[in-house]
Amino acid sequence: MKRKKKLSIKAGLPPGTPVYMGTMEKETEISIIDYDPENYQEIQIKNVEECFVYKDKSTVSWINIMGLSNTDVIERIGKGFNLHPLVIEDVLNIHQRPKLEDYRDYIFIVLKMLTYNDKSHEVESEQVSIIPGNNLVLTFQEKGGDVFEPIRTRIRNDKGVIRKKGADYLVYALIDVIVDNYFVILEQIGEEIEGLEEKVLVEPSPKVVQRIHRLKRNLINLRKSIWPLRETLGNFEKMESSLFKSSSLYFRDIYDHTIQIIDTVETFRDMASGLLDVHLSSISNRMNEIMKMLTIIATIFIPLTFIAGIYGMNFKYIPELEWKWGYPLILIVMLGVGVTMMIYFKKKKWL
Amino acid sequence: MKRKKKLSIKAGLPPGTPVYMGTMEKETEISIIDYDPENYQEIQIKNVEECFVYKDKSTVSWINIMGLSNTDVIERIGKGFNLHPLVIEDVLNIHQRPKLEDYRDYIFIVLKMLTYNDKSHEVESEQVSIIPGNNLVLTFQEKGGDVFEPIRTRIRNDKGVIRKKGADYLVYALIDVIVDNYFVILEQIGEEIEGLEEKVLVEPSPKVVQRIHRLKRNLINLRKSIWPLRETLGNFEKMESSLFKSSSLYFRDIYDHTIQIIDTVETFRDMASGLLDVHLSSISNRMNEIMKMLTIIATIFIPLTFIAGIYGMNFKYIPELEWKWGYPLILIVMLGVGVTMMIYFKKKKWL
Amino acid sequence: MKRKKKLSIKAGLPPGTPVYMGTMEKETEISIIDYDPENYQEIQIKNVEECFVYKDKSTVSWINIMGLSNTDVIERIGKGFNLHPLVIEDVLNIHQRPKLEDYRDYIFIVLKMLTYNDKSHEVESEQVSIIPGNNLVLTFQEKGGDVFEPIRTRIRNDKGVIRKKGADYLVYALIDVIVDNYFVILEQIGEEIEGLEEKVLVEPSPKVVQRIHRLKRNLINLRKSIWPLRETLGNFEKMESSLFKSSSLYFRDIYDHTIQIIDTVETFRDMASGLLDVHLSSISNRMNEIMKMLTIIATIFIPLTFIAGIYGMNFKYIPELEWKWGYPLILIVMLGVGVTMMIYFKKKKWL
Amino acid sequence: MKRKKKLSIKAGLPPGTPVYMGTMEKETEISIIDYDPENYQEIQIKNVEECFVYKDKSTVSWINIMGLSNTDVIERIGKGFNLHPLVIEDVLNIHQRPKLEDYRDYIFIVLKMLTYNDKSHEVESEQVSIIPGNNLVLTFQEKGGDVFEPIRTRIRNDKGVIRKKGADYLVYALIDVIVDNYFVILEQIGEEIEGLEEKVLVEPSPKVVQRIHRLKRNLINLRKSIWPLRETLGNFEKMESSLFKSSSLYFRDIYDHTIQIIDTVETFRDMASGLLDVHLSSISNRMNEIMKMLTIIATIFIPLTFIAGIYGMNFKYIPELEWKWGYPLILIVMLGVGVTMMIYFKKKKWL
Amino acid sequence: MKRKKKLSIKAGLPPGTPVYMGTMEKETEISIIDYDPENYQEIQIKNVEECFVYKDKSTVSWINIMGLSNTDVIERIGKGFNLHPLVIEDVLNIHQRPKLEDYRDYIFIVLKMLTYNDKSHEVESEQVSIIPGNNLVLTFQEKGGDVFEPIRTRIRNDKGVIRKKGADYLVYALIDVIVDNYFVILEQIGEEIEGLEEKVLVEPSPKVVQRIHRLKRNLINLRKSIWPLRETLGNFEKMESSLFKSSSLYFRDIYDHTIQIIDTVETFRDMASGLLDVHLSSISNRMNEIMKMLTIIATIFIPLTFIAGIYGMNFKYIPELEWKWGYPLILIVMLGVGVTMMIYFKKKKWL
Repeated sequence: MKRKKKLSIKAGLPPGTPVYMGTMEKETEISIIDYDPENYQEIQIKNVEECFVYKDKSTVSWINIMGLSNTDVIERIGKGFNLHPLVIEDVLNIHQRPKLEDYRDYIFIVLKMLTYNDKSHEVESEQVSIIPGNNLVLTFQEKGGDVFEPIRTRIRNDKGVIRKKGADYLVYALIDVIVDNYFVILEQIGEEIEGLEEKVLVEPSPKVVQRIHRLKRNLINLRKSIWPLRETLGNFEKMESSLFKSSSLYFRDIYDHTIQIIDTVETFRDMASGLLDVHLSSISNRMNEIMKMLTIIATIFIPLTFIAGIYGMNFKYIPELEWKWGYPLILIVMLGVGVTMMIYFKKKKWL
Repeated sequence: MKRKKKLSIKAGLPPGTPVYMGTMEKETEISIIDYDPENYQEIQIKNVEECFVYKDKSTVSWINIMGLSNTDVIERIGKGFNLHPLVIEDVLNIHQRPKLEDYRDYIFIVLKMLTYNDKSHEVESEQVSIIPGNNLVLTFQEKGGDVFEPIRTRIRNDKGVIRKKGADYLVYALIDVIVDNYFVILEQIGEEIEGLEEKVLVEPSPKVVQRIHRLKRNLINLRKSIWPLRETLGNFEKMESSLFKSSSLYFRDIYDHTIQIIDTVETFRDMASGLLDVHLSSISNRMNEIMKMLTIIATIFIPLTFIAGIYGMNFKYIPELEWKWGYPLILIVMLGVGVTMMIYFKKKKWL
Repeated sequence: MKRKKKLSIKAGLPPGTPVYMGTMEKETEISIIDYDPENYQEIQIKNVEECFVYKDKSTVSWINIMGLSNTDVIERIGKGFNLHPLVIEDVLNIHQRPKLEDYRDYIFIVLKMLTYNDKSHEVESEQVSIIPGNNLVLTFQEKGGDVFEPIRTRIRNDKGVIRKKGADYLVYALIDVIVDNYFVILEQIGEEIEGLEEKVLVEPSPKVVQRIHRLKRNLINLRKSIWPLRETLGNFEKMESSLFKSSSLYFRDIYDHTIQIIDTVETFRDMASGLLDVHLSSISNRMNEIMKMLTIIATIFIPLTFIAGIYGMNFKYIPELEWKWGYPLILIVMLGVGVTMMIYFKKKKWL
Repeated sequence: MKRKKKLSIKAGLPPGTPVYMGTMEKETEISIIDYDPENYQEIQIKNVEECFVYKDKSTVSWINIMGLSNTDVIERIGKGFNLHPLVIEDVLNIHQRPKLEDYRDYIFIVLKMLTYNDKSHEVESEQVSIIPGNNLVLTFQEKGGDVFEPIRTRIRNDKGVIRKKGADYLVYALIDVIVDNYFVILEQIGEEIEGLEEKVLVEPSPKVVQRIHRLKRNLINLRKSIWPLRETLGNFEKMESSLFKSSSLYFRDIYDHTIQIIDTVETFRDMASGLLDVHLSSISNRMNEIMKMLTIIATIFIPLTFIAGIYGMNFKYIPELEWKWGYPLILIVMLGVGVTMMIYFKKKKWL
Repeated sequence: MKRKKKLSIKAGLPPGTPVYMGTMEKETEISIIDYDPENYQEIQIKNVEECFVYKDKSTVSWINIMGLSNTDVIERIGKGFNLHPLVIEDVLNIHQRPKLEDYRDYIFIVLKMLTYNDKSHEVESEQVSIIPGNNLVLTFQEKGGDVFEPIRTRIRNDKGVIRKKGADYLVYALIDVIVDNYFVILEQIGEEIEGLEEKVLVEPSPKVVQRIHRLKRNLINLRKSIWPLRETLGNFEKMESSLFKSSSLYFRDIYDHTIQIIDTVETFRDMASGLLDVHLSSISNRMNEIMKMLTIIATIFIPLTFIAGIYGMNFKYIPELEWKWGYPLILIVMLGVGVTMMIYFKKKKWL
């Protein structure tokens, strides 16, 4: 949450005003990978205008823009590639919901890249925009990272079929690597759940409640990022654009993965709410134990103390006090009362 | 709730009877902004009839009516612009659900403007009706406020594209500013949730329950205002009317925002009901702590008090009482019982 | 519930057998209102056959039948107007779900009229059947009441447009008045909820649980009556029959009201289940208070009583007892123990 | 549950293998009713082959087969009427879900007949298969019973329209009588709920929990039998077969009943889960009462006992003990402490 | 869970890379059954290439591949039968969701075979891939087992119609045997539920909570395996491929079974969450019992002990102590107090 600016700062601004909503101050880096089955070129450019030459090349060009805080640069890129102002606004507004929009000449895809922060145990998200056009793929990231590195390596080394295929396959590969990454998050959450399942039965405590609560919040956030993905990816099949026809099998594959991820998130949610129920039951069981303990001790000793109290009274004429065997007798009576109580508890299965 | 009249006062009245259902007594103010790319005019009128000249002008006219308590004025406006009696009834009946109705010559849009009352911590809503016709936009507000001010400024200063575009874009800008305002509400509620998340774990109390309950009620009301919006805005795409074709991209943008808001409201609802569960668990944990305390003290001292009680009895023949080391011995026995108990509790992990 | 006969008495009877399922024994009263824009006539008839003359008149005829216990009369009316035996069976079987059935020559509409019984605080329902035909509207009520009175007045006094419009508008007016009445019920329930919201936080008690339970049952019953209404009214738009084309705007208006009512019922349901959660939390909080009280008193005084008990023992040789300052000393020790405990509780925030 | 064989015994058998899955050992009885508007014949046959003559008669023939344990007989009937092996398998497999399957020459309908066992308070179900063909209706029951008796009587006595109509009307009458029977079950469950509503508030106990649990299980089972019915009956309208066109009005009537039954089951489910919540609240309220009692007694008397303990100490020099008015004074002090506590509790509204 | 490799090891690999995700190290065994109505042949082959001759035979060939850890062999089989690389990847990735994909020349079906581990009481799953082509069926299993044995026996012995029908019927038989096996799992879970229902009422304990939790987890996992099956099998009807037209009746039969299984799983889920509620109620009831016990004992004896304490005080002038009948009197007073308390508790129905 703290990684984002308040949404309210945008209220009242004219639509299409480019405002970066994140807090990641970073100089924009533009790197271009240009390839066809035979050739391959990888460059870093300083000047925004240099990348416009890749607009109409017959080779596949992947232009990766990293760092969104310099809105001016992003806006110039948008204009250079004839992107709609609303697209540029959405690229910068990192509160976007995953979505796919068809703008005839290009498609605008918004995705969330998730990372599991090992310290705060929170799932964090970064917005990635992918804009495939004609033989051209633009990608925008906030801070980047090495998630796309495997794809770069594959292009460099001509591994797999990626060099033989077009921009659509590149888009597929980019989305695939993001979605595959979700499985890593799910595994970490799965481990957290397994850990909690044991804790909750063995030693329920406020700390466990706190962890379950955090887990639930993580799952709620995860769900918010992943549910729209299903619809987004489902749209690839319905799209009129012929851009993705040839790799529809691949997109169906990611779609399947997404469904699987959603299934798992839902399963985890079911488990997480089960955990709190089990925690409540565990606590109740414990309370029961404690109360039993208290009740047994109190119900045995309170009557005995009362008996002792009687013979502690200072009345002049208490005949029993004069008896020679009074003391041992009363001890035996007390023992009798105690044992009777114990038997009663045993019968009630409290002991 | 108290800002509205009872719905029951309308039961039995013929349909189309204009009854103002709010409690905001206020003289009706009519302000007109008339513009095209070159010219711009802003006037306040006193006489209702003066605004009818803007009916068929080729420039875009935005007629804003503020204050609905004078039903007579509203009715005259309705007749002047040929609005259906049911429309006027709905403008005045501020219990309306957000909706969009296509009346061929004009469209009738009902929205809710939300404000977060910082004192009562309640979300309050005000009904806004927007009626776009041919080069004409009528807006009805109960008390107004400055929510539309940024748009007026944009028109005045020719900022953005608003002066270049038609009435449809104005409608878009009006709805956009209302929807953007929802994000502000959501942020305030988000902060309330964050505050409660801490409270609920650290110091659960009846006051916290009250706040959670209020939060839930706010979310229920919010949801009631926002859910129908989705459908309403979804209708723009399906509308036969060609009025909004040219700005469909913009309406899709608001639609996206609405989905995002609904997502957030649902997420908040999930979190809010989680809060009550966590509260219950916290309370149970606390109760456990208290009971443990009581049980430990009671189970240690009750048996000891019993032992003391025995030797407080006044029997004539209690041999132990005569022993020289009787007193220290019994103290040691008591210490032994106490320590044994402590060890037992330690083993049970109660200490 | 007690106002209805058991459904089981119908099991095994041939379909179309007219059996009155209510318990409202009442002679059937038939009143006819016949009108066109110019003329107006209102009569009460005794003989069933008298009403058949209104079957094919060009004026609008509204025949209201009150009292269903005389099944013979109802059956004769059914035959006289060529109604299907299943329709007559359904008119008499007051367990019907709200519905709309198109029988070509006429339409069969079943609605529920709701009243809030101020004594038992239960929502009660009465079945109303409306059968519009060609220039003819039949209505069947169990006991009648004054719910339709405003419409009669409007027809009599030629108020609004009702006399100018046809039978379809009359049907609309009848349904409208029934649906408007639901808002009255909702308001009464809304007040009950507001009352309970305060009670539940301030003084949770078994009586409050009972009231919440009754509230929930009322909402369940309300929902059962109102949900099918949505579908029923939605069917007006889809109907092939041209009977209602001209007043479709009006029916859309009732449809909107119904949606609004359903929204409110769902909101109330959410609130009602929230109430029980808050009640449980309140009770838990209270229990906590009580337990704290008990624990503080017990943990302070039990150890002190134990100390007093020690020096109440009758051992011959207890040196402390001989000390001159023994008594004040032990009092100071006791005070010390008590104060220490208090400080401990203060630190634990129990005080 | 115990009335059925394990489903696992079928695993691995080739499809279409006829295995009776029930435990109702009973000789198969075949009874035939053959009728047209003028004639009527009712016979019991011993030899399976005798019934094949009714296959192509122009009169309506209703062949009722009672007792499924003799799979050989059932199989021969299946072959005689050219039924698909899967149909025969499903007739015998009484675990079937209610369904309707169109096999061109005939239709295969599976329904559940429900009975409320007054001893175990469990809802029990029996499978009924109805196979309408051309002028022919086959029905299969496990043990039979008198549920179809009213229809036989109607045919015998030419009551209602049944003799005048075809096989489709007979099918309708058979389904109608089964569905009508559900209302009887619902009434018995409704009474159970009303009884529990009172119990739960007045005397919550483990037995009540048990009854609520049984109620919920009954409703779950009921729902399982009734939900698929909606779809099944809905299919009658969509069916291509012209078999049921003429009595579609009647099937719509049963469909309405089914919806009503489903509504009621859902309502009951809502009520049943409400009951457990109320039970928990009642128990909590009771616990509160008990704890208050304990706390009041303990917090009043424990300090008093402590005071008495002090003056029971045997210190040599306790000046108060020597005072003449020491005893009455201390009694007054004790009374003062007690009364103060009482006032405190009164203020806290515990008394 | 432990039977599977982490999903994360695949992140970043190019799509279509065959990676076995299970942990079942096993040499691949290939067995072929080739048959037509007259002939039958069953062989085990060592060399992968030997099985390619069955690709275009006019007889039905069933090639069963057991053991997936040798990815090289699986890949060669894939290439030999022209399977898409994504298919081979999915065969090896045993985390797949049940699905059906139409690849024109062949169909790719993924199913889960479930087993109930009697020791850990967990439901375990194994992935089975079925790939029907032209007169050819490929099946891939991880470890195999005897689940397909009944089908082999049926083919061998020419039992049922299997030899007379084509590859589609074989596919049906394979799926049927897997789905039938689910009933066995459901029965075992059903027994577990019945056992728990008794336990939960009679002796609620942490162990019961643990078992309920495990049960819920099993049901969640079961649901995850079975829900997609519905869609998968529903797809058979929609498929364009004419491969399955002739046995559509049979697939409808499995579809019905699947619906039945889903119904049962949902019913079980309802029951399982009911169990936890009942457990909580049982625990609360028990706590109530314990608290009553404690309160009765304490409220009776604490006041009595106080009275005894008073007359244990050592004041010089306590007149009662001198009375001759003081002691018996005080005993009678104590008895009176005790009996009064008892009567009070009786009236409160605590005894």
